[in-house]
Amino acid sequence: MALPLLVLLGAGGLLAAERSGGGGGGSSSAMEELATEQEAEESHRQDSVSLLTFILLLTLTILTIWLFKHRRVRFLHETGLAMIYGLIVGVILRYGTPSSSGRDKPLSCSQEDRPFTTLLVNVSGKFFEYTLKGEISPGKIHNVEQNDMLRKVTFDPEVFFNILLPPIIFHAGYSLKKRHFFRNLGSILAYAFLGTAVSCFIIGNLMYGVVKLMKLVGQLSDKFYYTDCLLFGAIISATDPVTVLAIFNELHADVDLYALLFGESVLNDAVAIVLSSSIVAYQPTGENTHAFDAAAFFKSVGVFLGIFSGSFMMGAVTGVVTFTKLHCFPLLETALFFLMSWSTFLLAEACGFTGVVAVLFCGITQAHYTYNNLSVESRSRTKQLFEVLHFLAENFIFSYMGLALFTFQKHMFSPVFIIGAFIAIFLGRAAHIYPLSFLLNLGRRHKISWNFQHMMMFSGLRGAMAFALAIRDTATYAHQMMFSTTLLIVFFTVWIVGGGTTPMLSWLQIRVGVDPDQDPPNRTKQESAWLFRLWYSFDHNYLKPILTHSGPPLTTTLPSWCGLIARCLTSPQVYDNQEQLREEDSDFILNDSDLTVTYGDTTITANGSSGPHTATTSLDGRRTKSSSEEALERDLGAAEHEVASRGTRLVFPLEDNLRSLKSP
Amino acid sequence: MALPLLVLLGAGGLLAAERSGGGGGGSSSAMEELATEQEAEESHRQDSVSLLTFILLLTLTILTIWLFKHRRVRFLHETGLAMIYGLIVGVILRYGTPSSSGRDKPLSCSQEDRPFTTLLVNVSGKFFEYTLKGEISPGKIHNVEQNDMLRKVTFDPEVFFNILLPPIIFHAGYSLKKRHFFRNLGSILAYAFLGTAVSCFIIGNLMYGVVKLMKLVGQLSDKFYYTDCLLFGAIISATDPVTVLAIFNELHADVDLYALLFGESVLNDAVAIVLSSSIVAYQPTGENTHAFDAAAFFKSVGVFLGIFSGSFMMGAVTGVVTFTKLHCFPLLETALFFLMSWSTFLLAEACGFTGVVAVLFCGITQAHYTYNNLSVESRSRTKQLFEVLHFLAENFIFSYMGLALFTFQKHMFSPVFIIGAFIAIFLGRAAHIYPLSFLLNLGRRHKISWNFQHMMMFSGLRGAMAFALAIRDTATYAHQMMFSTTLLIVFFTVWIVGGGTTPMLSWLQIRVGVDPDQDPPNRTKQESAWLFRLWYSFDHNYLKPILTHSGPPLTTTLPSWCGLIARCLTSPQVYDNQEQLREEDSDFILNDSDLTVTYGDTTITANGSSGPHTATTSLDGRRTKSSSEEALERDLGAAEHEVASRGTRLVFPLEDNLRSLKSP
Repeated sequence: MALPLLVLLGAGGLLAAERSGGGGGGSSSAMEELATEQEAEESHRQDSVSLLTFILLLTLTILTIWLFKHRRVRFLHETGLAMIYGLIVGVILRYGTPSSSGRDKPLSCSQEDRPFTTLLVNVSGKFFEYTLKGEISPGKIHNVEQNDMLRKVTFDPEVFFNILLPPIIFHAGYSLKKRHFFRNLGSILAYAFLGTAVSCFIIGNLMYGVVKLMKLVGQLSDKFYYTDCLLFGAIISATDPVTVLAIFNELHADVDLYALLFGESVLNDAVAIVLSSSIVAYQPTGENTHAFDAAAFFKSVGVFLGIFSGSFMMGAVTGVVTFTKLHCFPLLETALFFLMSWSTFLLAEACGFTGVVAVLFCGITQAHYTYNNLSVESRSRTKQLFEVLHFLAENFIFSYMGLALFTFQKHMFSPVFIIGAFIAIFLGRAAHIYPLSFLLNLGRRHKISWNFQHMMMFSGLRGAMAFALAIRDTATYAHQMMFSTTLLIVFFTVWIVGGGTTPMLSWLQIRVGVDPDQDPPNRTKQESAWLFRLWYSFDHNYLKPILTHSGPPLTTTLPSWCGLIARCLTSPQVYDNQEQLREEDSDFILNDSDLTVTYGDTTITANGSSGPHTATTSLDGRRTKSSSEEALERDLGAAEHEVASRGTRLVFPLEDNLRSLKSP
Repeated sequence: MALPLLVLLGAGGLLAAERSGGGGGGSSSAMEELATEQEAEESHRQDSVSLLTFILLLTLTILTIWLFKHRRVRFLHETGLAMIYGLIVGVILRYGTPSSSGRDKPLSCSQEDRPFTTLLVNVSGKFFEYTLKGEISPGKIHNVEQNDMLRKVTFDPEVFFNILLPPIIFHAGYSLKKRHFFRNLGSILAYAFLGTAVSCFIIGNLMYGVVKLMKLVGQLSDKFYYTDCLLFGAIISATDPVTVLAIFNELHADVDLYALLFGESVLNDAVAIVLSSSIVAYQPTGENTHAFDAAAFFKSVGVFLGIFSGSFMMGAVTGVVTFTKLHCFPLLETALFFLMSWSTFLLAEACGFTGVVAVLFCGITQAHYTYNNLSVESRSRTKQLFEVLHFLAENFIFSYMGLALFTFQKHMFSPVFIIGAFIAIFLGRAAHIYPLSFLLNLGRRHKISWNFQHMMMFSGLRGAMAFALAIRDTATYAHQMMFSTTLLIVFFTVWIVGGGTTPMLSWLQIRVGVDPDQDPPNRTKQESAWLFRLWYSFDHNYLKPILTHSGPPLTTTLPSWCGLIARCLTSPQVYDNQEQLREEDSDFILNDSDLTVTYGDTTITANGSSGPHTATTSLDGRRTKSSSEEALERDLGAAEHEVASRGTRLVFPLEDNLRSLKSP
């Protein structure tokens, strides 16, 4: 461990040192400097070109999406398109650019014991600093010297986890349509947690069978452990039906089905990421680790629960803490909001939890509490900011996937494994949806119909999260095979399954053109689970008044002997009925894209006419002091009809306003 | 050059390979793997913590700014505050955290000839990949092994150029108040180009004298060439009066002075960056390069002009090309706009030009043309997006500066040099402002008064650009001294000069509380230089109709025999008078912060009443076909009074609209 600091190894260095030590070395050193500088410049230029490639890809994607949206093409989603463009550029880069010269051939020198994070190298008497990039499996050493351009377009896998996934996941949490989500909370949780675990376990075991079979027929050339199979199960269990949801959104398909699919996909991303890191944590405890071991399994479960609840707590707490009162300065507010969300991610990572999961719950909590404290301008700012970030990050990941099929250097395609994987994910999805739906239907009053179950079965697309998990570790043979297979599964599901969504919807006779706010209000009360009602009343009566400027004043919800505390904790604005309205709006209006569709046509006249009605509802003392049951009723059921008119406060119906002003 | 691929150097590697080659190495390798993994995890955690530190800094800054804005404190700007917090955290990191253990001591092995970008290292039979980080000067080798945390918070200087500066500079270009800027274009160009060159040359020569003096008294321990002095002149010539401008904005100080200061600081950033890279390019051509050489000097000037015009062209062209027609999909539009701006930067870098300069002109062009093609939603979105990015990047740079004073490892403070530098920048600024103002006043009808000249002299603050240029290269003794001195100059100017702005304004009796649109309109025509008028008429009659949906139809401005071409190139929307209005608005309304102050109080009633008047102006056939002179007149002079009412279309007077709707 205690190495001499500057052991000058090898003859080359001595030789070089000798040469530069001689007289008149100044000019040669200047020339060298020039050469190094030029090389650095060249490298910088290549970096720019590679980034430019991705920007070009995204630009092309955007322009084509525009064309598609204009022509109402629905068989190909923007993410599918991004992948196609990525594929094309990948082919060009792979076969179109010349192979690199020998110039960059790596040199090898050796160290004792363990790799160091920093390395000092003596070149002609000058010292250069190197940093550790990662291990290379011995078989792949010759592959390191590859096309420069291919290497330039290959990103560090951690980029996905630390830069691209957080905005996507945060946006998902921040734009959860809360009403329908909470109405189906129980089912969503069951699908996301139980379902993903079942799916992971089944796929893992099926794949272990496939691997055994491959060994039998001699198709496997390296080790493939049971834990690797389980890891594959975890990776591939994260569904991402972005294509399906986009079409649902466009066609206004059934809101409950939308909530089930969206909620499941948002939460099972979190479950899959924690599941896979628990499996990785469970791996290296000795020689015989890779077989099944009950004790280690429960340890793994413990790790899972620990990471998950830790991340959940952290996200929720930070979300609640972002308690901005900077109303007058929207720029500061937005910046603070952004920083707090990002710091949730970093804080969780620094504590050893999972940043992505923390960010998800931070998003949900911020949508629930912080959003109500923001100024109107900041609400739109934050939504738009995260929408743009989400859009760019998502399309970047998908175009990178297309690119990776050709530019990734260590692909390992095994037909048996791929076919096995496709069968396994089909069976895993079936074993996840049907039995669970059966059990859930026992408890649900509003049953999940067979058509819905088939649609959920069909919507098991894989996307960004599966890819990011798979590319995270591609060091071993098994992981490389898993990565290549994951890539193919994502391609297949996004293109084929995504493209078949519209026919499938009509074939399964799922109703479209539903106004989310014109749902039958009579089934609201029954659908709310008792757990949810309990939580709701606690949240509505105590948390919201404390954490936001909305909800009923604490003085009315707390027992009378708590009067002093209640008065201290209640924001003076709570008494302002203006604020109460805002709160109720925010429960419904979180997704901008829905907004424009649903409320875009609402004119100011509608708002004006609903004015008096709104006022009576909230100014009436008895109604304000109503029990949480009534409030829930109002929020979920009766209030629905009022939303369409109230909603206009959060849209930008500027054009409409002006037009309606000028028309009379 | 042609090295054997895998030369295993040294005994250590052989020894290690032997050991791991023995039997039973599996368990030890698993343990090693675990150790490496833990180390990687630890490193990741430290990365998170260091980023978290910066986020904490920014959060603190935001909260304190809010407090300051609330209390109307003007003696300390947010950037000054960010520096103070940075300083505090820097002290804590430097003296509060334990020094690193010997664990990460760098190993040295040697290579022939030149450093490679990739290095393969054999550790106990495993291969690890290392990438080149940079050269370390021999005297500093022992400093490499330092506090882990200090190293973690030290960013690669290229981060500033490639990530943090572009949004700042783009925002500056995008938010140029065009009317006042163009009215003073000649003076601004003179200050920015001639002034910066003069300042650079004078400071460089003065500093060369200081360096000679230091050599004489034995204060200089290493080489300090004439080109280093010139480089320092270029670095320190980039003014950044962000503090002064913020106060101007808040107090509504004289608009012409604002335009002069802002325009100069925006453009001289571009000049300084190109100037410094020309000086660097001029350096290494032989042994005797560091003395003055007329031929090389003119080559350097050629490089300067080449880079500058190349970047300018590229930025302008990309800005013009971003010709979006995605009106219906603001998200796509915003994403495209963002990508095109970024690709300008990358394209310029890839071509060997200066990305930051390209981005500046891209911003100006986009504000002039593309902005008019955007949908109303996208206009606010893009403005807000870049505003947030700009805000975060700027405060990050300033807090990093505070941090760097204590965490930077290679500071070189020389009292003589520092005092000399302060005197030199004072004299340089004086030699830049007063003679140039004298010359300009010969040509200007509206003279730059002595008070204005004193204020400009006073406002020569240094900021982000000087810092980024100085930190770019800190390899040699001279550069380290320049960096430390630059840091001190930035601190001094931002705190002392920035804090003295308000007293200075009142002492110099510069008028405040000016409404930018209530300027005496009678002096508009005279102030416009003939060059500008020529360009304006060309732009107004030909470029705007072709590139945007605004301006007069080409059919009216082109000779009659070009009728067919004119009809093809003119957008059908040009004929729509609605669009014509929008164009005129955009010339004035680009800076959001001004907007809210100036137009925030305008109610819909005002808009409504101005409606008929506006309509007559633009629907009148004769007026639409008016000569460019008249159009210029209208845009710059007469139209000013109408702006206040028309401007409301671009603000979000949602609250006002609603209120005014409800009130009648």
